[in-house]
Amino acid sequence: MYVIGERLNGMFKDVRKAIEGNDAGVIQELALKQLECGADALDLNVGPAKAEPVKTMMWLVETVREVTDAPLAVDSPKWAVQSEVVPKVPGKVIINSSKADPEELIKYVGLAVEHDAALVALTIDQQGVPSDTDKRVELGAQIGAMAMDGGLPMDRLFIDPIILPVNVAPKQPMHVLAAMQQLKMLSDPPPHLILGLSNVSQNCSNRSLINRIYLVMAMTAGLDAAIADPLDSDLMNAAITAELLQEKMIYCDSFLDAHRMRA
Amino acid sequence: MYVIGERLNGMFKDVRKAIEGNDAGVIQELALKQLECGADALDLNVGPAKAEPVKTMMWLVETVREVTDAPLAVDSPKWAVQSEVVPKVPGKVIINSSKADPEELIKYVGLAVEHDAALVALTIDQQGVPSDTDKRVELGAQIGAMAMDGGLPMDRLFIDPIILPVNVAPKQPMHVLAAMQQLKMLSDPPPHLILGLSNVSQNCSNRSLINRIYLVMAMTAGLDAAIADPLDSDLMNAAITAELLQEKMIYCDSFLDAHRMRA
Repeated sequence: MYVIGERLNGMFKDVRKAIEGNDAGVIQELALKQLECGADALDLNVGPAKAEPVKTMMWLVETVREVTDAPLAVDSPKWAVQSEVVPKVPGKVIINSSKADPEELIKYVGLAVEHDAALVALTIDQQGVPSDTDKRVELGAQIGAMAMDGGLPMDRLFIDPIILPVNVAPKQPMHVLAAMQQLKMLSDPPPHLILGLSNVSQNCSNRSLINRIYLVMAMTAGLDAAIADPLDSDLMNAAITAELLQEKMIYCDSFLDAHRMRA
Repeated sequence: MYVIGERLNGMFKDVRKAIEGNDAGVIQELALKQLECGADALDLNVGPAKAEPVKTMMWLVETVREVTDAPLAVDSPKWAVQSEVVPKVPGKVIINSSKADPEELIKYVGLAVEHDAALVALTIDQQGVPSDTDKRVELGAQIGAMAMDGGLPMDRLFIDPIILPVNVAPKQPMHVLAAMQQLKMLSDPPPHLILGLSNVSQNCSNRSLINRIYLVMAMTAGLDAAIADPLDSDLMNAAITAELLQEKMIYCDSFLDAHRMRA
């Protein structure tokens, strides 16, 4: 499971405060802590209402890059942010994210190809988030085809079929699983399948439990990446154990620790 | 998830002692406790080395039946036990289990039909437990066909594709998932799919974690019944949460308690 740590997001109060106060220490500590807990990459999101998003994102990138070489995901829906920041990120970078509309997607694929970036592409078009399986598969196939046409290798493409909160959209968890089962047959090698996992439990009770159970269900349906909270050790243990049962690692009595040490 | 409580098994020291001492109180308490924790039925197994298996099984049946009307699973590989005990069980009864060999299976199907019992049938033949997906599906299909021919309704058939411990048979968890995905398309309505869940973690560390993660993976692949430990509240919470995400119940903030109260 490729885990992109979600915690460096201005939606969280501690991060928002650190961004507002230019407090590099808090940001760097949270970056290192997520990596220690098993994150493979770090998502960077300046939060909802930032006046200077490009400048703030660049500060986040530079601040985190001072302490780690891990891939950094520039998380913004704004083309201005992506097109200005992505070329300047030292080391590995992930563009998070493009929608599936062809005019938008073609620009993002080009940006990813030009700068050796990976790309997260959402199965969303101008009609919004699909309410069924078929539309997710259709948009995912469109994304896969455009990425191939544009020269983006499949191992740098992450298709996100969009999970919605189970309390308001109870049918969507199963639609997403069904879509993933189909999307992983899209090509050989297949694209990565990713989810913004915590969204499934937005405004729910027992959030951590819902997150980790859905993670395991999604892994069974083909998920191989998630934007998630690596500080949730129950979540990480669930992911490691699912990988053990998928024969992605060999059993030993200390399999949880062994997995953590191989990073 | 239809949970058959596994704890009334002579392999457990407390149960063995209670059987040896004819201590009905211990047995009845463990029966009621499993039902309170969410078991739908109770497995009864006299343990490995009992001299009078029929008499002991009858004692277990009568002892448990004094305190509950829940379905009882007569768990024995011996035809003598099944053919003598099953006709005498008051109320609902599950035969656990038959192998897939035609000569054996036809007797068990007949017994189930004659006594309105449900039947657990294992995808095992004289070659033993299959080491791949295809053989499990082949034996499962054979079981389904013979049950139908014998007049056993599909909703009283539980096919068990046999899970082995992940530490000694690391490929089997995925083979079982793949077999289940195919077996649930066998007929309409499909047979139930069941596992002796705890076997996946035999002699492993972190048994409860491995059990509940594999349960969720198996539910995603079509499992709808398990012989498992209902006293493991983490396991039961995982099952309830997976059902929530499968839209088998409606979300409310107290969904764990709500599920437990609807029994």
